Parts: sequence; C-alpha cells; structure tokens
Amino acid sequence: MGFTLAELNEADVPDFVAALGGVFEAAPWVAEIAAADRPYATVQALFAGLRAAVEGVDAARRHALLVGHPELAGPAARSRSIAPASIAEQEAAGLDRLSEAEYARFEALNRTYRERFGLPFILCVKRHGRASLLRSFEARLASDPDTERVTAEAEMFRIAAIRLDSLVTGEGGLRTTGRLSTHVLDTAAGRPAEGVAVELLEWVSEGEAALVTRAVTNSDGRTDHPLIGGRPVPIATYELRFRIGDHFRRTGAGLQEPPFLDIVPVRFSVGDPEGHYHVPLVATPWSYQTYRGS
Amino acid sequence: MGFTLAELNEADVPDFVAALGGVFEAAPWVAEIAAADRPYATVQALFAGLRAAVEGVDAARRHALLVGHPELAGPAARSRSIAPASIAEQEAAGLDRLSEAEYARFEALNRTYRERFGLPFILCVKRHGRASLLRSFEARLASDPDTERVTAEAEMFRIAAIRLDSLVTGEGGLRTTGRLSTHVLDTAAGRPAEGVAVELLEWVSEGEAALVTRAVTNSDGRTDHPLIGGRPVPIATYELRFRIGDHFRRTGAGLQEPPFLDIVPVRFSVGDPEGHYHVPLVATPWSYQTYRGS
Amino acid sequence: MGFTLAELNEADVPDFVAALGGVFEAAPWVAEIAAADRPYATVQALFAGLRAAVEGVDAARRHALLVGHPELAGPAARSRSIAPASIAEQEAAGLDRLSEAEYARFEALNRTYRERFGLPFILCVKRHGRASLLRSFEARLASDPDTERVTAEAEMFRIAAIRLDSLVTGEGGLRTTGRLSTHVLDTAAGRPAEGVAVELLEWVSEGEAALVTRAVTNSDGRTDHPLIGGRPVPIATYELRFRIGDHFRRTGAGLQEPPFLDIVPVRFSVGDPEGHYHVPLVATPWSYQTYRGS
Amino acid sequence: MGFTLAELNEADVPDFVAALGGVFEAAPWVAEIAAADRPYATVQALFAGLRAAVEGVDAARRHALLVGHPELAGPAARSRSIAPASIAEQEAAGLDRLSEAEYARFEALNRTYRERFGLPFILCVKRHGRASLLRSFEARLASDPDTERVTAEAEMFRIAAIRLDSLVTGEGGLRTTGRLSTHVLDTAAGRPAEGVAVELLEWVSEGEAALVTRAVTNSDGRTDHPLIGGRPVPIATYELRFRIGDHFRRTGAGLQEPPFLDIVPVRFSVGDPEGHYHVPLVATPWSYQTYRGS
Repeated sequence: MGFTLAELNEADVPDFVAALGGVFEAAPWVAEIAAADRPYATVQALFAGLRAAVEGVDAARRHALLVGHPELAGPAARSRSIAPASIAEQEAAGLDRLSEAEYARFEALNRTYRERFGLPFILCVKRHGRASLLRSFEARLASDPDTERVTAEAEMFRIAAIRLDSLVTGEGGLRTTGRLSTHVLDTAAGRPAEGVAVELLEWVSEGEAALVTRAVTNSDGRTDHPLIGGRPVPIATYELRFRIGDHFRRTGAGLQEPPFLDIVPVRFSVGDPEGHYHVPLVATPWSYQTYRGS
Repeated sequence: MGFTLAELNEADVPDFVAALGGVFEAAPWVAEIAAADRPYATVQALFAGLRAAVEGVDAARRHALLVGHPELAGPAARSRSIAPASIAEQEAAGLDRLSEAEYARFEALNRTYRERFGLPFILCVKRHGRASLLRSFEARLASDPDTERVTAEAEMFRIAAIRLDSLVTGEGGLRTTGRLSTHVLDTAAGRPAEGVAVELLEWVSEGEAALVTRAVTNSDGRTDHPLIGGRPVPIATYELRFRIGDHFRRTGAGLQEPPFLDIVPVRFSVGDPEGHYHVPLVATPWSYQTYRGS
Repeated sequence: MGFTLAELNEADVPDFVAALGGVFEAAPWVAEIAAADRPYATVQALFAGLRAAVEGVDAARRHALLVGHPELAGPAARSRSIAPASIAEQEAAGLDRLSEAEYARFEALNRTYRERFGLPFILCVKRHGRASLLRSFEARLASDPDTERVTAEAEMFRIAAIRLDSLVTGEGGLRTTGRLSTHVLDTAAGRPAEGVAVELLEWVSEGEAALVTRAVTNSDGRTDHPLIGGRPVPIATYELRFRIGDHFRRTGAGLQEPPFLDIVPVRFSVGDPEGHYHVPLVATPWSYQTYRGS
Repeated sequence: MGFTLAELNEADVPDFVAALGGVFEAAPWVAEIAAADRPYATVQALFAGLRAAVEGVDAARRHALLVGHPELAGPAARSRSIAPASIAEQEAAGLDRLSEAEYARFEALNRTYRERFGLPFILCVKRHGRASLLRSFEARLASDPDTERVTAEAEMFRIAAIRLDSLVTGEGGLRTTGRLSTHVLDTAAGRPAEGVAVELLEWVSEGEAALVTRAVTNSDGRTDHPLIGGRPVPIATYELRFRIGDHFRRTGAGLQEPPFLDIVPVRFSVGDPEGHYHVPLVATPWSYQTYRGS
C-alpha cells in the first residue's frame, strides 16, 4: 500500500501520521511535527521536513529516538515484537535464518556495542550483505562515542529514506535504489546469446557463496528483470555464473568435449548500493570479456 | 638419467635392454626384439620399432603384456612393489594420497573391471586429472571386451611413449608433452602486470578444487616457468585465480574499496593433454578478458 | 502527413486512393483494387492486399507497372519530373549530387539495361549505399530476362513496402527500418565515456569515404539518437571514427603525447538493411574492443 | 662490417680511429681522444668515453662539431657529398624522395634555422617519421639559442649512439633499438590466425598514409620478423590493416557477404622509439580487440 505526495499533502494530520508514523522507528511524533510544514513540493522536500523535525528536538529526545531501535537479530527481532518494517528489513538480510552460532555472535556483538555506546547497533541492513554487515559492526565497535552517535543517526536517516521512498510516489524521489543487471553476447555468431542460465551468488563468508537468484537470458541476451532492482544492491562480493558451455552446445559452435569454457564465473564487488552495476558477458567458445557497463 | 639416440644405437644389446627394458611394464623382451632393428634414425622410429616388437608376438604374449600391468591404487601400488616408473606415475596422479574411501572405491572398480575383462585397468594416468580418471574408468567398464582390449593397448603405448620420450634425447621426439601458461596485461597502464599472484587449481570433484601450483608474474607479466610443462596437461577442469585487485592497489589505479575486481577466477577445461593452453588475462580495474591464446 | 489504419479502413474510395495511390509508382489503380477488400486488420494485411492487386492483373498491365518506374539519375529524375516519393528516395541516395562523370556512367548503365531487358532499372535505393547500388546494377546486367523481371518486381514491392510503412501507422507494421547505433565505455574509469565525438562515414568507392553524420556521446556513453534509424541502413561499408584520445585527455588518463590511441577507426559492413547494428567501443588509453552488439 | 669491443680495445690508434671516426660527423678527433682511455669494459663505457672527449674540448671546437653536420635534405645531402652514415640515415627517413615542394619547404626551414641559431638543424632522423620530423623542426625554430644548442648536442649524441651501437658488438649495448610487432588470434576457433595479410602504414601527413611494410601471419599467428625491429621505431602515427575477412572466408566462419568485418584498421601512435610496441588483434567474424601488449 502506498500514497501519492498529493494525498499526503491534503490528508488531515491523523491520517498523515498514520501513513508516515513508521518511517522513524517507534516515533510517530516525527511525522506529527513535519505535518505542520505541508504542503511539500517533492518527496525530497518531505524527507527534509521529517529530518528537520528530528533535528529540531532536544538532545534527550534525539537520543531516545536512537535507543528506540531494535537490535539486529536480537531477542525482540527473534520474537518478532518489533516494527513490521524492521522485521521485513532484517528478514531481507537473512537475519531471521541465522545458525545458533551466528545468533550467539550477534548477541555478543550487540551486548558489547550497547555497553560501549549505550545504544543499540543501528545499520541500514538493506544496504549490506551478510559479510559487510559483520565487518561494519566490528569496525564501528572500534569507533568513539561522538563519531558513533553521528554514524548511528546517519544510518537511521538512510533507513527512513528507504521506507519513505517505498511508501510515497511523486516528484523528486530519493534515489534509494540501485541495480544489478547482465547481458550475454555471442560474438562467434554476432548475436545475443538466448537461453543462457545465469546464477547470482553472494559470498557471505570466506568460501561460502549463497544463491541470490537464478535467471535465463531472453532473445536480446538480457534477463527479463534486473538480477537486483527496486532496492539498494547490498554491499557484498558477488559471483555470476554463466552456463555458456550449454549455449555453444546448442548453437553447435562448441565442438570439443569437454569444452574449453563451460560455466564462466565472474566475481565482483559492489561498494555503492545506489549505483547501477551492469556486468555483461561477451563470449565465444574460446574467449570471454566482462566489464562494468552501463 | 637419460640416453642419447646415438648411445642407444651403438650400445650392445644388454645395455640397450637395461636402458629401455622398463618402457613396457615388466617386459624387457620388447626392447630385446627391437634392439635387432637398430640403428633408428629418430626417436619416433625407435618407438615404432618397440611397437612393432609388441605387435609381432603371438596373442598369448600380447595378452600377458597387458596382464603384467599393476592396478591403479591397487595393493601392489600401495606396497610399492611395482615398477619405479609406475610408482612415479601413480604418485603424480595423487593415487598414493587417496582417502580410505577412495581406495575402497578404486578397489571395487578394479575388481569389477578385472572380473569383466580379465585384465587390470590400464590408463595413461599422466594424461588425466582425478575426475577424468574416474570418469574414464566408469566409461570403460561399460565397454565390450574387444573394444576394451584395443583401448587398453592404446593406453599402454601412450604410457610407453611418455617413458621413452623422457629417457631418450634425439631427433624426432614423440611430442608427449603439453603446456599451460598465462600472461597478465594491465591495459589501464598499457604495461605487463608485474607481481600478480596466480593460483592454479584443479577441480577434482564437484565443489572440490585442489591447488596445483602458485606463481607470481614477472616484469613481462608472465610466470618464469609454465604453470604446467614438460609433461602432458592432465585432462581436467582448472581454475586460475588472479589477485588483480592487489595489483591495482599497488599501481594506485583501483581507487575504491572494495574494488570492483579483486580475485579474478578463470575456469576452463583441458581436453588435449599434448596441446598448448595459453590463458592470458587482459585487465583493468573495471574489466577483463581471457581467451585461449598461443 | 500520415494516416492511421483505422482512417484508411473507413475512408471512401477516392480518399483511400488519394492516400495510397503513390505507393506504387504512377499506378493509383493498385490502391483502387485493394480498396474493395477493406477492412484490413493490420498494415501487413493492407500491404498483402496491395500486392494481391498487382498479382491479380494480366501480364501486360504488370509489365506496364514496371515500365512506369523512372530511371535512376535519369533525365526525368534530373528534371524532377517524377513522383515526389521517387525524388526523395533518389536524393537520399545522393543521386541528385553526382558528378557529370557519374551521371554519364548511370546513363550508359541505364541505356544498356533498357536495351537488354526492355525495362528501367528498378532498385530500392533506400537499401543501398552508392557502391552497393552500382555493384547491383552491374550484377543485374549479367542476369537473364526472366530472373530479372522477378528481381525487378521484388524491388518494386520493397519500394512500396517502405512507402506504405512511412504513410500508415497501426498494428503489424512492415519492419522496413533498421538501426545503426553505438556506445562508448571507458573501462579505465568503469564509466560511460561522455562527450566523445563520433563520425560515421560511408565508403562510397575505393579510397573515398563520405561523411554520413556526426554525433557526441551523452552521459550514458550513447548518442541521443541512433546514427541511422527510422529507415533501412543502406548496404555499404562504413567507418566509425571515435575521438577517444580527447576523452582520455579530459579525464587525465592519457598521460603521454602523442597518445597511443587518438582517433579510433572501426570499419564494418552492413548487409542486412533491416537489421540492428549496435557497434560499441569499449576502450582504455591502451586498448579497445568492438563487436556487433544488440 | 662491425667490430667486437675486444678488437677495438686492442687495436692500435689509427685502426681505432678508422673504425669509429665516423661516429661523430666529420670529427675523427673524438675517437682519437677517446682511444687514450681504453680499454672500455662495455659499449656503454666506450660511448661515455667518446662523449667525455666531446665535452672535454673548448667551446669553439664543440661549436664547430655541430656546424659540421649536414642539413636535412640540403644541397650537400642531395648531391650525396656528405658522410655515408648521414646519407643512409636521411634516405631511411625518405628525405631523398621528397617532392620539389617538400625540398623547397626544407630549404626554407633550413635557412630560417641557420639564420636564427647559426647552426644546421640537427635531429636524429632515425627516431622520427616524416610528420614528426617537420613538427620538431617547426617547434625548435621557436626555441631560444641556449636551449637550442643543448637540444642540438643531445640529438648529435643520439645519432652517435645509434651509429656506435650498429658498429660495435659487446657487453652493455646502448639499447638504441625498439620493436613493433603483431599477433593475430582467431577466438572463434581458439587458434592463431594463419595466413592473414597485414599492412603497416605511416601517416606521413593529414590524410596521406605511406606503406611501411607488408607481412603474412605464420602458423603461430605472428609475422616471421617484427614489422619494425633492429632500429628505433620512428615517432609517428601508424595504421595496421588486417585482412581478417579473407581469413574467416578460408575458415568458413564468415558466413554472410559482405562480412561484418573485412579489413580491420588499427591506428596508433609511437612516442617512444626505443620501446616495444606489440599490437595484437584478437578477432572473430563479429568482434575484435587490440591493445598494447608485450
């Protein structure tokens, strides 16, 4: 369910708060304050209004806002007694499917963090793969309280921006999404390679790759939908696996068995979740090239 | 220790037999017969002479020649009570380092094969990786006795050719060796990429890759020695892993962390053990290409 | 000015003929016959209707239809006393800008052809570059009358299809257009190359290349419009010239002067005027690649 | 005819001078002085000795040494009344085959230069193509006398180094030669492309390319000899033209006529005459790549 910017500009305050009360965790008061400054010309302006509301309150209340966030893979999350948006975000990051050992690790990290900074660890999990999430957690444990409060608020605003962007349609969106796409060309035949099975995996830890998605190229050599789209591309190391050997078996170009090339792995990292990563494969039975395209 | 063709042509018969008696497993008589037709103008001619000697004897003796071969990873091999050349060949194929489960599997295959064909399973192991060796073994179990006798002799001659080639230097070698080499070019800088760590792995089974060798590129972007050379390139699926990210960190070309490309895996299969497989990497921080070169 | 299929289906006969009377040179009667079979569900069906009209009349009338075509670069064309569509087509092929020597050559070819076949030389000029047009002319002079009549009619139908496609919008177009496009990627920077000047030339004769169009790449590394689009891509040998040296001077990547690469020429031929020719350039200061993409 | 370093170290002075008297134009006295410091351990040391001899004499004599050089394409050169080495060098640069207009241009440049600097224009012509030679000439006319004297001496020493390197064999050569080579790979077939005709041209002026050499690739896809080797690679813009279409016609891979790729031009510039320029072509009927290799 979503809203248009126009609807939100015209809604009475209770409806406005009902719509946007969840953008900041457990803090409908942010929307309540921002409601007064309507109308907003763009979604960006609306987000700036919410941000100003947060920045306008006293230090205690700002601190409470951070404290109100649930821990990652914490008890509250496990018992699903947190905001629906948080549940969805943590599930998307696979935090609801951790092994007991991993839960234990998160519990230890959460405890240490809370003791050190008096806050729950806040991170925009939609922008991180599993390995990156743990790297960030450990890196931030080494930070100092002042820097860390700034970082935590920045992450809170990132979470809010993504939630708002998915709730509201209208002028001047917040560009909180990236894209990962591919394209397979057969330069032995001078044609797009159709029907090539492609797997996208994420390296969740040293030596462990988890399947993200599967697709098959269409008559234009592309997948019908981006491999990742409509959301940030999590910061992670990925591997695309192209079953190019099967393609050349079909076209009859791959004469010998075993073929020189069969499954082609392409490993790359994403550091900019809002970026567009186009990773094509230009192949013959005896060669291939890949690059960051556009 | 080796011999020149000239030495062998001039040697008296006992010395000739002492030199080449091991070319055919447990069959010095082959060299003894071939000695009579000396001199041989080329190593190829010498090999043809040995082959003619085998093909000149009666069926019973030819059969005995095959029967004289040791089983792969069999009891004789494990107790090292087989010909030194066989020991070396089986060790090179890793057959002296099998798990108990793998030994058991070979024992079962050997038994089945012997019952079905009345012969030990003969394969030129130097031409096969672990997975290919097992695939061949199972494929040949499905063959019929006549075809299989022909195949077994062909493999015996391949073994003999490699042994002879490594023993004798002279005109007209037998071309029993292949080559696997690489070359790393940095096309962002227009220079060979020096100091790039390269790993070569062999996929010994689904999901298990064993390290074959490590190397570092020199100032010409090549490795000082071929990754595999002076022997057949075992039939297998390989993976080269290039630490190209470290290279661009050194040259300062790879600005962001994590870099788009860090470890580049190149997976390919070798089907022609006597072929030359040159697999270069032409890379920038944002692209790479590989192909079967020369 | 154009028409929708619906309008043509509902128009009274005189208006229908007024709209489509020029699709076949000097032969409004074709439209008149086809009018009777309306309504047509698709543009393809409409074209089939016109074609059927032609194929339904007697040999004499069909012959007259061919005879009614103007010669290429003939006196009628020079004095512009031919159908507007023909004038536009011949001008698009540059036939109104020939040297006296070229006119003389066409005059000779036209005369020879008319004497040999009793017809004007009919060719769908929009599908041919200058060199291809002359090659076809000479090739067809060597043909026999029966084959040539078939060829001439086929070309007449091609001309008609293009004229109809540009006149009528509606379901099931005739696909009479091709496309030539490009894309420049900078794989030293991992970004599209913006602001690259691109020239497209056509090799009109051995050693003579005529400029077709100029463009500059946008922020996505593409040109705002296809280099050739909305029409057939004339059969010809082309050369794209990319001023890539200037790009790397701007980005600071091209350190030395003279740069290794400055103007990159890419020469290729088009044989399928209705095809899509995407010819990208993937470049660094020290390397580039091009291919037929999609 | 050449000498070994040992021979020169042992020769008596007149023979030493006879051997090296021509290294500096019309100045055997340089060798005469250098003779006293023998023996020289390396060719580099010998060159340093000659250089020291020049730098050891008074300003007048050093000036006379420069004045002793012939003008480029000047009357003395045209009447071949200059040192044999100079004749060969100027001919190699094509200065004996200029049009009258070009001679006139050189005459004007020579006159202006002599009036401005009181010296003949001295340039190591073996390191420059025609266009680069004229660019340098014009650039240096804009220089000031002191800078120009230094530049002229530097060029004189370059000329001397090349002459010495070609005369003397021994330890520690002067590295006065570069190399231009190519390699053609067919990645549709995974093999070197054999029998490909290659032309190397030099762009001598805007729109005028002069043939430098022709070659055909061998079974390894290389030319039997470097396209340019054993001498500096003249500073110039070059164009390689590969008849790759004929290759794919022979292999049957290039199905359609006209083929997408027929003659592939690769245009690049050389700025470092002593460098190694390896410019391969990695091609299929529908794609190709080139880069500065090694």
